[in-house]
Amino acid sequence: MTDLTERIQRSFDRQSLMATLGATLGSVAPGTVTISAPILAGARQQQGLAHAGLIFSIADSAAGYSALTQMPESSEVVTAELKINLLAPGAGDALIARGRVVKPGRRLVIVTAEVHAVSDGQETLIAIAQGTMVPVNASR
Amino acid sequence: MTDLTERIQRSFDRQSLMATLGATLGSVAPGTVTISAPILAGARQQQGLAHAGLIFSIADSAAGYSALTQMPESSEVVTAELKINLLAPGAGDALIARGRVVKPGRRLVIVTAEVHAVSDGQETLIAIAQGTMVPVNASR
Amino acid sequence: MTDLTERIQRSFDRQSLMATLGATLGSVAPGTVTISAPILAGARQQQGLAHAGLIFSIADSAAGYSALTQMPESSEVVTAELKINLLAPGAGDALIARGRVVKPGRRLVIVTAEVHAVSDGQETLIAIAQGTMVPVNASR
Amino acid sequence: MTDLTERIQRSFDRQSLMATLGATLGSVAPGTVTISAPILAGARQQQGLAHAGLIFSIADSAAGYSALTQMPESSEVVTAELKINLLAPGAGDALIARGRVVKPGRRLVIVTAEVHAVSDGQETLIAIAQGTMVPVNASR
Repeated sequence: MTDLTERIQRSFDRQSLMATLGATLGSVAPGTVTISAPILAGARQQQGLAHAGLIFSIADSAAGYSALTQMPESSEVVTAELKINLLAPGAGDALIARGRVVKPGRRLVIVTAEVHAVSDGQETLIAIAQGTMVPVNASR
Repeated sequence: MTDLTERIQRSFDRQSLMATLGATLGSVAPGTVTISAPILAGARQQQGLAHAGLIFSIADSAAGYSALTQMPESSEVVTAELKINLLAPGAGDALIARGRVVKPGRRLVIVTAEVHAVSDGQETLIAIAQGTMVPVNASR
Repeated sequence: MTDLTERIQRSFDRQSLMATLGATLGSVAPGTVTISAPILAGARQQQGLAHAGLIFSIADSAAGYSALTQMPESSEVVTAELKINLLAPGAGDALIARGRVVKPGRRLVIVTAEVHAVSDGQETLIAIAQGTMVPVNASR
Repeated sequence: MTDLTERIQRSFDRQSLMATLGATLGSVAPGTVTISAPILAGARQQQGLAHAGLIFSIADSAAGYSALTQMPESSEVVTAELKINLLAPGAGDALIARGRVVKPGRRLVIVTAEVHAVSDGQETLIAIAQGTMVPVNASR
């Protein structure tokens, strides 16, 4: 595990919502981070599909950590704003969110994320997100 | 409990993510719905604050159900898109999301939501959201 | 004219797009600014209604100047991001955009704007916007 | 000129705001449309850069027309909502907006747009946008 992956994994492990949702950190590279999650029985909306909140949560964390890969070691990242469009029902075996830095910056980092649903190994794009992450001093 | 409240409560009770987050349905009135949630130990980000995903989840459900109050009985509601700005750290005893219909419509319902954190009975605005809900035929 | 109004008016007068669109600065108060514009023959979309670009332009300037009212004198304001929902056709005698600061801040100012169309003195809400303004050092 | 290009050009020519901004229709292909514009002296903000309203206007039209390429001939397109993040100053010889359909649909078409500034033949990404277009019956 590289230093970068270790750093992101350490922060991810402290995000208790990710554990609650069964989410796991996938690939980590400069400017891009992947997070996967099952569609747990406890993460659904009224029709039994993935709740928008689940889809947003992993999109937000993937986008935020993609931003963190390009911030100084002493930084943590928080979401300033994020907008999500839901394109298709959140159904399948699992969800994969891929975050990506579009524009790094000292004060604002512009990010996007795509979320795919996986069924029988086939991916369907179910959401796209676009937003702004900001660095904050890590409180140890 | 009025018919309207009963209808929203029935749908809310099927949103398993709300139970997972400990969220409860508050007031229901035509065009506006309130949802409360504690900041559970399992719903946090890396600094121990409410995860953006928790804040978004209750904002989304409150906004969606405010839209549902103005849709025909045979409809369910899904989120087409929602944008959230996070204004202040998600810290406190509980969160309250208030959804509101800005513009009803047969095809698109424009909504907003505000999320406050409550500490010692004092409310702080921590997020605002704006988006679009669409009616879908209720499955059964 | 108060110092605050003068300061905003001076900056507004340098926004040449506002003149091109026939827009004028209305009321200015701490945290809120109003801008009006006719629907000029040269500011329309393909159906003869106000182009979304016109509606966005005055919403953006009104929101930006509402933020500037709460920034230090040495600052100028730029838009980091803005999201607009269009609710009704942009038709009528004129448009009025009202910007408002939801959350001031040293690094980010969260704003909203509402745009109404005016017909025979009657106002119709045609758009709502939500976004983020950031201070930059005034050049000279 | 193909039938598709002709159809988009006809609608574009009726968007008077595009002429006011000096914008021209570039390439048209199924699901993607390009619009270029100079940064006219009359389309600036207070620092002499491209006004966010100019950048939004061409992003919106490019995204809208990319959606129209995938709608029935009898349709016109209107913007339901669009969110834009501004990444870099709007400075240079010209701007190019590239719209793209992410998800076609009968009721909602999800789109993105990127805007680049061109200086000495070099492109810089200055804005990204994400939103929703809806078909409406063409009023002749």
